[in-house]
Amino acid sequence: MSFEFELMATDPHSQARAGRLHTPHGIIETPVFAPVGTQATVKALRPADLVALGASLILSNTYHLYLRPGDERIRDLGGLHQFMAWPGPILTDSGGFQVFSLSATRKVDADGVTFQSHIDGSYHRFTPEKSIAIQENLGSDIVMAFDECPPPTDYDYVKQSLVRTHAWAERCRVAHTRPGQALFGIVQGGIFRDLREASAQFLLGLDFPGYAIGGLAVGESKAQMHAVLEWLHPVLPAGKPRYLMGVGAAEDLVNGVLRGVDIFDCVLPTRLARHGSAMITGGRLNLRNARFATDPAPITAGCACYTCTHFSRAYLNHLIKAKEILGHILLTTHNVHFLLTLMRQMRQAILAGELPALAGAFLAHYEGGA
Amino acid sequence: MSFEFELMATDPHSQARAGRLHTPHGIIETPVFAPVGTQATVKALRPADLVALGASLILSNTYHLYLRPGDERIRDLGGLHQFMAWPGPILTDSGGFQVFSLSATRKVDADGVTFQSHIDGSYHRFTPEKSIAIQENLGSDIVMAFDECPPPTDYDYVKQSLVRTHAWAERCRVAHTRPGQALFGIVQGGIFRDLREASAQFLLGLDFPGYAIGGLAVGESKAQMHAVLEWLHPVLPAGKPRYLMGVGAAEDLVNGVLRGVDIFDCVLPTRLARHGSAMITGGRLNLRNARFATDPAPITAGCACYTCTHFSRAYLNHLIKAKEILGHILLTTHNVHFLLTLMRQMRQAILAGELPALAGAFLAHYEGGA
Repeated sequence: MSFEFELMATDPHSQARAGRLHTPHGIIETPVFAPVGTQATVKALRPADLVALGASLILSNTYHLYLRPGDERIRDLGGLHQFMAWPGPILTDSGGFQVFSLSATRKVDADGVTFQSHIDGSYHRFTPEKSIAIQENLGSDIVMAFDECPPPTDYDYVKQSLVRTHAWAERCRVAHTRPGQALFGIVQGGIFRDLREASAQFLLGLDFPGYAIGGLAVGESKAQMHAVLEWLHPVLPAGKPRYLMGVGAAEDLVNGVLRGVDIFDCVLPTRLARHGSAMITGGRLNLRNARFATDPAPITAGCACYTCTHFSRAYLNHLIKAKEILGHILLTTHNVHFLLTLMRQMRQAILAGELPALAGAFLAHYEGGA
Repeated sequence: MSFEFELMATDPHSQARAGRLHTPHGIIETPVFAPVGTQATVKALRPADLVALGASLILSNTYHLYLRPGDERIRDLGGLHQFMAWPGPILTDSGGFQVFSLSATRKVDADGVTFQSHIDGSYHRFTPEKSIAIQENLGSDIVMAFDECPPPTDYDYVKQSLVRTHAWAERCRVAHTRPGQALFGIVQGGIFRDLREASAQFLLGLDFPGYAIGGLAVGESKAQMHAVLEWLHPVLPAGKPRYLMGVGAAEDLVNGVLRGVDIFDCVLPTRLARHGSAMITGGRLNLRNARFATDPAPITAGCACYTCTHFSRAYLNHLIKAKEILGHILLTTHNVHFLLTLMRQMRQAILAGELPALAGAFLAHYEGGA
């Protein structure tokens, strides 16, 4: 059994699920949040720190690793797990999103995308087959189909784009041959129910071992994101894991879990840390703010993370102002701990039948609630 | 007993000593190397990492902490140990060296130094009394007398400067009243035997609990540095700790221990790490070098540090090229481990009567040897 999803419990009051995803590099208890290690490192954390924080899955980026240091080099060095010394499961994206969001210029055709590197301006081409070949070289546990991520509110464009994304999904299914990797299809369709349902139905026909929901958290409203998840819940098979791509705000994780999502990833906790922000229930603390310079309290009283059990807001404010690396380390530690703890609490609540109370109390700190 | 030095063993074949320095925050086994935490953080390492590496003493900088976040703020937040969550002993310098090396402009008079902040250009004044007051606010275990650090090869200037440094040492002795702190005098005198011996004799008259050797590693030759240590060995009392300031190259640590030094500090291991260099026996590896991009070996085969037991030179080369914080973390970890391990090995060799063999084998990797 190299890849299997066990559904262990469903919440009778919501669409929430608790499960276990078996992979060649270990078991992922779901729902789960995956910290992002874009360039084969979760910024400012060692693998040992991620283990200590309880991370069980990380994401890494095909686009970045293809450009630097190169997927063939990583393959020759023993694969991505060995290269970055991460012992647990890895999910790689397809590179599609970064090609559309990062590259200097790009040209999409039916066969693939030609783009310029954001590093040195050199020209490259991704096709579905190329994306899969890269991910096979990296050796990740979960690999993603190559898709187009269109602006979510342009119906005609999204509809045309789906034709391409679906054709590419079929080609990825054919191209992917490496054993021990699970290839997930990606449901697109913007904010439109008919397109989302059609996309899900098409991909179900290809019988992927898991399904991602792409093209969200890119500018649509929270209500629109929630609606997409609710439409897809009855369409997607209960026995396969569901992955909401690129979502990591705490309230979005809770709302996603309530709507049946099993896997999330996002750069938010690491990126906020680099900008001096700490995640707290109900929002964020910008520790650059001068009012924290004399504050002896931790970020969050009672938080069990290394940062909160050792350091004051005043110290963090000092580190940020002095541009010290330790500021990044300590804020990243807190933010990743914050999200992973939230996910563990939700999983336990699902298993105990207490998710509605937990989610309600948490979301009461946010505008809009559940 | 808040501060006491136990001399445990002396090497019959050299001037090397092994001892134990008792402080209010723990015992320092000597000879010892102190990593530098300039701005109340050893760059890229958490206190827990320093403990795991076996660091027993760190240095922090009076000049930097006075300017940012301010010594009174640190006092109000519980002192430097609590502020930076470092449980062990801390040594603070006097600020003198930084005033002379970092500040935009400075004006020295018999009473003290007026200088401009390197951060914002604001004007400040350090006197011996001010330096002691700052260090009392910080609450370090070992505090240093305020001195002038002159160019070491200008006899007339060094001789004149000694008058000032000695007067300031007397004023520091009077000004220092906080219990639980040991005030060290600083022997100056450049590369001149008569001045060094006179400086040591003068300071001995003030009966400090420890003596620093200042004004070295600032441009003189290795042979000149060694000569100064050899001249001072018979003058300085055997029962007091000796601290060679600002020295951290591996071969200098070995040569210093052979010449009776108990305590060293230097930014070298952390600074080299930020520049992509790893310390190895016999020199350094610049891991930016393209030849490491495909090298699957660790920095040093057999090295027990976290970096060498988990990561290849190829991965470190990638992290450095990609400007990833983890590169700083891993190289800092290796470099600090390298120096602390060397110090522990020397201490054990002194206790076992085997220092000459260890030092000889180590220094054979360096030009000039012992």
